[in-house]
Amino acid sequence: MSGSLYGTIFKITTWGESHGKALGVVVDGCPAGLPLSEADIQPYLDRRKPGQSRISTPRKEDDTVEILSGVFDGRSTGTPISLIVRNTSQRSTDYSEIASYYRPGHADYTFDAKYGFRDYRGGGRSSGRETIGRVAAGAIAAKLLNLLGIRVTAYTRSIGPVEADLSVFDREAILSTPTAMPDYDASARAESYLKDTMAELDSAGGVMECLVEGMPAGIGDPVFEKLDANLSKAVMSIGAVKAVEIGDGILVSHAKGSDNNDAFCMNGAAVSKKTNHAGGILGGMSDGTPILVRAHVKPTPSIFRPQETVDKNNREISVQIKGRHDPVIVPRAVVVMESMVAITIADALLLNMSARTEHIVDFYKK
Amino acid sequence: MSGSLYGTIFKITTWGESHGKALGVVVDGCPAGLPLSEADIQPYLDRRKPGQSRISTPRKEDDTVEILSGVFDGRSTGTPISLIVRNTSQRSTDYSEIASYYRPGHADYTFDAKYGFRDYRGGGRSSGRETIGRVAAGAIAAKLLNLLGIRVTAYTRSIGPVEADLSVFDREAILSTPTAMPDYDASARAESYLKDTMAELDSAGGVMECLVEGMPAGIGDPVFEKLDANLSKAVMSIGAVKAVEIGDGILVSHAKGSDNNDAFCMNGAAVSKKTNHAGGILGGMSDGTPILVRAHVKPTPSIFRPQETVDKNNREISVQIKGRHDPVIVPRAVVVMESMVAITIADALLLNMSARTEHIVDFYKK
Amino acid sequence: MSGSLYGTIFKITTWGESHGKALGVVVDGCPAGLPLSEADIQPYLDRRKPGQSRISTPRKEDDTVEILSGVFDGRSTGTPISLIVRNTSQRSTDYSEIASYYRPGHADYTFDAKYGFRDYRGGGRSSGRETIGRVAAGAIAAKLLNLLGIRVTAYTRSIGPVEADLSVFDREAILSTPTAMPDYDASARAESYLKDTMAELDSAGGVMECLVEGMPAGIGDPVFEKLDANLSKAVMSIGAVKAVEIGDGILVSHAKGSDNNDAFCMNGAAVSKKTNHAGGILGGMSDGTPILVRAHVKPTPSIFRPQETVDKNNREISVQIKGRHDPVIVPRAVVVMESMVAITIADALLLNMSARTEHIVDFYKK
Amino acid sequence: MSGSLYGTIFKITTWGESHGKALGVVVDGCPAGLPLSEADIQPYLDRRKPGQSRISTPRKEDDTVEILSGVFDGRSTGTPISLIVRNTSQRSTDYSEIASYYRPGHADYTFDAKYGFRDYRGGGRSSGRETIGRVAAGAIAAKLLNLLGIRVTAYTRSIGPVEADLSVFDREAILSTPTAMPDYDASARAESYLKDTMAELDSAGGVMECLVEGMPAGIGDPVFEKLDANLSKAVMSIGAVKAVEIGDGILVSHAKGSDNNDAFCMNGAAVSKKTNHAGGILGGMSDGTPILVRAHVKPTPSIFRPQETVDKNNREISVQIKGRHDPVIVPRAVVVMESMVAITIADALLLNMSARTEHIVDFYKK
Repeated sequence: MSGSLYGTIFKITTWGESHGKALGVVVDGCPAGLPLSEADIQPYLDRRKPGQSRISTPRKEDDTVEILSGVFDGRSTGTPISLIVRNTSQRSTDYSEIASYYRPGHADYTFDAKYGFRDYRGGGRSSGRETIGRVAAGAIAAKLLNLLGIRVTAYTRSIGPVEADLSVFDREAILSTPTAMPDYDASARAESYLKDTMAELDSAGGVMECLVEGMPAGIGDPVFEKLDANLSKAVMSIGAVKAVEIGDGILVSHAKGSDNNDAFCMNGAAVSKKTNHAGGILGGMSDGTPILVRAHVKPTPSIFRPQETVDKNNREISVQIKGRHDPVIVPRAVVVMESMVAITIADALLLNMSARTEHIVDFYKK
Repeated sequence: MSGSLYGTIFKITTWGESHGKALGVVVDGCPAGLPLSEADIQPYLDRRKPGQSRISTPRKEDDTVEILSGVFDGRSTGTPISLIVRNTSQRSTDYSEIASYYRPGHADYTFDAKYGFRDYRGGGRSSGRETIGRVAAGAIAAKLLNLLGIRVTAYTRSIGPVEADLSVFDREAILSTPTAMPDYDASARAESYLKDTMAELDSAGGVMECLVEGMPAGIGDPVFEKLDANLSKAVMSIGAVKAVEIGDGILVSHAKGSDNNDAFCMNGAAVSKKTNHAGGILGGMSDGTPILVRAHVKPTPSIFRPQETVDKNNREISVQIKGRHDPVIVPRAVVVMESMVAITIADALLLNMSARTEHIVDFYKK
Repeated sequence: MSGSLYGTIFKITTWGESHGKALGVVVDGCPAGLPLSEADIQPYLDRRKPGQSRISTPRKEDDTVEILSGVFDGRSTGTPISLIVRNTSQRSTDYSEIASYYRPGHADYTFDAKYGFRDYRGGGRSSGRETIGRVAAGAIAAKLLNLLGIRVTAYTRSIGPVEADLSVFDREAILSTPTAMPDYDASARAESYLKDTMAELDSAGGVMECLVEGMPAGIGDPVFEKLDANLSKAVMSIGAVKAVEIGDGILVSHAKGSDNNDAFCMNGAAVSKKTNHAGGILGGMSDGTPILVRAHVKPTPSIFRPQETVDKNNREISVQIKGRHDPVIVPRAVVVMESMVAITIADALLLNMSARTEHIVDFYKK
Repeated sequence: MSGSLYGTIFKITTWGESHGKALGVVVDGCPAGLPLSEADIQPYLDRRKPGQSRISTPRKEDDTVEILSGVFDGRSTGTPISLIVRNTSQRSTDYSEIASYYRPGHADYTFDAKYGFRDYRGGGRSSGRETIGRVAAGAIAAKLLNLLGIRVTAYTRSIGPVEADLSVFDREAILSTPTAMPDYDASARAESYLKDTMAELDSAGGVMECLVEGMPAGIGDPVFEKLDANLSKAVMSIGAVKAVEIGDGILVSHAKGSDNNDAFCMNGAAVSKKTNHAGGILGGMSDGTPILVRAHVKPTPSIFRPQETVDKNNREISVQIKGRHDPVIVPRAVVVMESMVAITIADALLLNMSARTEHIVDFYKK
């Protein structure tokens, strides 16, 4: 089925392989009248770009987005918005050898098992570049959320043992540091840690979080379309993510009810809570307090040490991967997480508009 | 949108509130020819039943399932299978008071925010009884998986600080102990812990896991319909779950690539792996090794201590919940997790059949 | 996949076979706050009931609907509404013989080809009784549409050569006559025609139409989710329908543009049209004028004359069908058409609420 | 919601406006291993091209397709296939005036009603050029069907009063004549008729049919996903179509059961029918005999006579459309119908693979 479609009303279909001609996304269901141009989208894609730091490998990727449809006179028309990013850096020679074996920790084997063969160049559809479509669409969703006063902010919480100090929470640091951490000091320590890791021909994992502020209450649908269920699917679908938490997450399994319950209280005329262990979601619907999602990202599978594996003829062999690989995935995944969360929230907001008969009646009173 | 539909080919729609006339599910897309009767489904529902232990409250719930359609001559016909469980124990008097305020940790507030009002009796649609439909459908999915040699086993891994010894892994214990732990000793210690917790008028959280054995490789679709993405949505949609892990889960964020990568090797003529940090899923598709999913369940929100909250007129009040409530959710959620995993795997297996042109050509060569 | 699910937001899943225990539908996505009771639904089901005329065979079918969930304090809660109709008249003996052969014009053969076997009793899932779920759901959709001032009216336009005089258009006649024609005289002539047809051991076809008044403009989505495309799917899905027309329908293929174009004009402050060849839909979206859909229904396949066919062992045989069969399908299908149109319109109205950014912004300004 | 997505497994999302930068489609769900190149797709797009006849207006449109993703080593990879056709002929000056009023018979008014504004250039998303994406995707579906021995052939049956002689049925004529009729003589007469029509500053309608040969039986799902229901949605979604028929279509409403029933018989070892009034579909599933779908296409709305209409300020005005417009739509719509039918059939074939438990078990016996 390919599975490159996401969403019910605000739907996105991404396409493209790392070494194909281009990558992109079609957004089908963006409401009409949203001010939109490439300038809204390019900054999000730039947050994916490596080569501006000592910890990501110098691969030149321009990744310039172009809007091909769905926008007229500077606004979305309500018809599908097609975005394209052309691949400018395509050196297959780096990858020709890996066609013959299965890299540990990568999707080479599972792609072969499913389809019988694969585009082996640079990871093909399982490459990190597949996220270009997600991020471009995420920029559009974020634009819509901004109009509603909803702010989505993702950041790196930790890399290996190095943790950001969240009481600092410097938003500028998220965009400026090569680690996407909201803490310049922690970022410097993380870069140092990663230098050591690279020297060991190894890679490191990390944790990223996403905060959603300004949510109205009641967004999400009970049972299977719960907001946290969809957020976890959206985030788990990002390559290398192996765990998703909402609010206190794993801590709840060792907590007592008296501690874990968030007491309701009034904040002016609005219902609020004294604590937020729930991470802003109760019974699968937003409760009006900030939503917090967390993802655990595994270390980059491509390391330069020798590894045991199997080749396409089912012979056990030893391989040593070449090429250009980052020692950590998290910093590049942060904007992907932010995009997936924005897209999921946007879709849920649109779906929620038809929840009450009274709202529908009001809407159609011309 | 209500969100009570799940699946693409093997689709289930659940319905029913805790204090309504009945609950049930319609399974639309079960393949024809599957041997099926109430006897296949009832044992799964019985695993939800409380009152057989000291740690769950004695609520009499018969929960007898009846098949109303979709089965003929002992086999599924390929048409929708409608299952019903009639509510026999409905004492609204326990719940009349809570109509006036929002219980902390429950979906009362978010339901009101979304719909403007709610069926306040016993949690209505957000009650644990909503899972009856899921479990009944899960029994059908499990029956299909069994024919394919795939075995799905969920169990309680820990309650509060008490951990099961997984090297023991007694399958009988899962079905016999009131904690659903695969370890009789740990179960006894957990029950003792919960007795103390109840005495404190408090509740406890826990961790449950689900193992899937016998999977073929290549199941799941890249990008958004990744098997782990769908499993996390399925499991996160279960009430009280706040975190989902695949394989090593949260551990990956602190691991090195050299440790986290699973080396491929041959096991006879089949490709296998020396380790399984990935939890059986690579690039969003099964790799043929056992799949491991983990969920963290929060403590029961309904505790008998006084709590601060807000009533429907937005006044801050103090409440003390009455009624019958378990001190822990996990043991009852285990069969729900097993069901959601079975349903998700079944749907993915059906979708995978059309992945390759050669398979489609073979299929239609009459 | 079974295909018993219909809709995107206002979703219905029907279930049940003609000789199973019961039939029903789950409506998932009905907005909360809609006043609803069995009294709203039963009249629609009663319009399916035969035995009140000389042209339908005297089969006793009570078809009493019961609401099992999704309604509280007389209003929909926004959670799934499960409706059930128990089968009271089940005489399998009438149908035991047909298990061995394929009745011409029925789905016996195609069910066998798809599933390998079938519930042969009375048509199983392909029986006209399958429409019970559709009609019950249609009653709910119609209730919602009424609140919006939208009126859906279906009727029989012709039976065999007998045509109703639409300039008469007696709404009472639609509900009172056994033919569901809006013209008492034509109904009497049609009944006479059908008596003759029955005497010949034959059956007749007919045409039904459905009018939708009070539509706002702009409902439907361009390209694949055009309102007329969805209406044609909805109506063609009704058993025995072999053609669907919108507005002038087949006449357009022989018309000139100068005649077929509907000139726009003003009707007070509203945009209207001088004619309505388009049937109320332009470019796939409603234009604010009445929508007209037409369906051609084939004659009842079950006739009492000897017929040539094939049995399950692939032998050519001659058969003579027994049992109780109406000589015409259209009168019973009229309320099904009305229901499918109402459901489709309701879903499109809900989807349309998120078409414009300005509406979304207004909605979330609390 | 935009509605540019079609399909369940074999899914297509089209995008692009007539005067935007480009148009295209993303096919998500094409099975892997299908031999594919631009050479498979271009011929289908060329069948849309005007300017090669006296009856279509000389608009230069190159419409060269390019595959951007999803194909490697000459075969589909199973990942999304992105196709693009760049607009080379974009003269907005022809259309600037129509921004101020609603053209009769066009979607100008309904687009405005839905979105509040529209891309007025050349019809924007409602332009006939929107079908480029459908046709490109249809070529891929047809390639898959060919491997299964299934042949889809669409043609013009009539233009105005001129009917093709189907007993002739010259397949070459379909591709060679400017009318897409399977009859050179009728084509010449139709061209003459259209010359007269153009001289009258008018336009004509027509009828197109699509034949599907080589279908296995049992394709389609009962109730809502009936094959004929989906075919009618697919074909009705083509602009200017106002009626869809299956097999005998409208004739069934005036037929007797004894005439309309198709008697089953044996054709060698295969079940067949003596007649095919049903058009190859029974109970919503294919019966193994040729499928016949018919569509009635309205005359081109853009005629050069003066017309009454309304402008954006709701003033009644008279307009005279300029620019380049064909006097008939049908010849250009034929390949669109063929594509939509191919796509629908392909999706149904993939869905059918999971209908029987025995097939699923066989599939997973490695």
